[in-house]
Amino acid sequence: MNRQRRDILKMVVAAAGGAAITPMLMKNSYAAKEQEKIPEVPWTYKKVDPIAVAERAYPAYYKGGCSYGAYEGIIGELKAVAGYPYILIPTEMFIFGEGGVAGISSLCGALNAVAAAIFLVTGAVAHKQREEAFGMIRELFNWYEQEALPNYRPKNPRYEIKASVSKSPLCHASVTKWCKAAGFKSFSKERAERCGWLTASTAKYAVEILNKKADSAFIAAHPLSSQVQSCRSCHDKGGALENSRTMMDCGGCHFTGGKTKHL
Amino acid sequence: MNRQRRDILKMVVAAAGGAAITPMLMKNSYAAKEQEKIPEVPWTYKKVDPIAVAERAYPAYYKGGCSYGAYEGIIGELKAVAGYPYILIPTEMFIFGEGGVAGISSLCGALNAVAAAIFLVTGAVAHKQREEAFGMIRELFNWYEQEALPNYRPKNPRYEIKASVSKSPLCHASVTKWCKAAGFKSFSKERAERCGWLTASTAKYAVEILNKKADSAFIAAHPLSSQVQSCRSCHDKGGALENSRTMMDCGGCHFTGGKTKHL
Repeated sequence: MNRQRRDILKMVVAAAGGAAITPMLMKNSYAAKEQEKIPEVPWTYKKVDPIAVAERAYPAYYKGGCSYGAYEGIIGELKAVAGYPYILIPTEMFIFGEGGVAGISSLCGALNAVAAAIFLVTGAVAHKQREEAFGMIRELFNWYEQEALPNYRPKNPRYEIKASVSKSPLCHASVTKWCKAAGFKSFSKERAERCGWLTASTAKYAVEILNKKADSAFIAAHPLSSQVQSCRSCHDKGGALENSRTMMDCGGCHFTGGKTKHL
Repeated sequence: MNRQRRDILKMVVAAAGGAAITPMLMKNSYAAKEQEKIPEVPWTYKKVDPIAVAERAYPAYYKGGCSYGAYEGIIGELKAVAGYPYILIPTEMFIFGEGGVAGISSLCGALNAVAAAIFLVTGAVAHKQREEAFGMIRELFNWYEQEALPNYRPKNPRYEIKASVSKSPLCHASVTKWCKAAGFKSFSKERAERCGWLTASTAKYAVEILNKKADSAFIAAHPLSSQVQSCRSCHDKGGALENSRTMMDCGGCHFTGGKTKHL
């Protein structure tokens, strides 16, 4: 940079009223981006409207699946309402969770995505904040297993949809329970629509939890069932066997048909 | 802005050699950040060293759990090697996946996180790219179910660890299989170490897949088992029942004890 340019730079910094502009002038925009530091988690949460989130999640489901739909429902709304730093998040990454991750039908994509969103705005590396965020995520998983879902009807649905109780956070178990209750096939348009409603319902409940947390009024409403607590008393931490770990509803997969004997 | 300031701005734009600087001068740095557009997925992948990724993932596991460890292993290495835009990703968000999401023991956190990372660098909204990314993620899940893991030993481990075959992508099933094979409890330090090795192993295999893809040499090496294909022929898309969907190893949970009859 020649002397003339340096002098002009000094003048403009004085005229514009701050030294903060100087580094921006010294770099091109790419270099400026390279040095940008993102905020650490948790990112500052701003309360959003659960209905707006649900109505954003539902069409997003048809664009990028359940996981993207739920994540875009929450983070897309925060981009619109709060702006930076949420605008930095590539929400399309969450298409990965579609159909229980890449269609593998393991964990429900809507649950997976909203768990990530909850952690982003409430969690941290530190144990206390991590556990607080985990408490909200666990409430969400228990709600998903125990309630008749979907429980949110989009304003302009493609079909009317029955509700069912999944007793599991897993995609294939949740789908099969609904197929049996509603009488539709697993690859029907009605089942797809059901997952769209479920995406909206899950994103909506997540922000209801987050809004309560923001008001210091969050209390878990869906504790682990007595059956799960009974299983955990032997198999989980401190139990006589201590050969597993879980907070999933054991009865959703094990003891099918109402049997209580061990497999 | 008064006339003197406008004139100086014109001069500095000319002196610095481009009109692109003008908008940056007009705003403070916060406003500039607000307008920043992130690239759409897929983000440009740069081949990284699988061993470096594994060695980054292992200590990260002890900081933030399996999901954060695996994600930080890959994305942290890309931050170091490729810089922008990877530096914009708050990798701590992936702590959410710890212990099968918030300790719930559903989907293995290492698998969950690397699936997200694979999609970020190879996937897109468009069907063709989405399916290509899903193909890599499915290879990873099948590998996880079928191989004796962990198969990567960190350079400075805390304990020596036995391998076991999980036959499931689920945290609690994978943990229980290992506890039985190794003779340790599910909340032992050895089991924690095993999950650290598994985090490193999973992140390593994911970038081996990505590096092959970058060389146009990726071929799935772990197809669905004949048992899963048999189950899917009735229960999945186009089957006589079509009442479920899955690419998980059915035998990992159903038909336990070698039984082939239906539950």
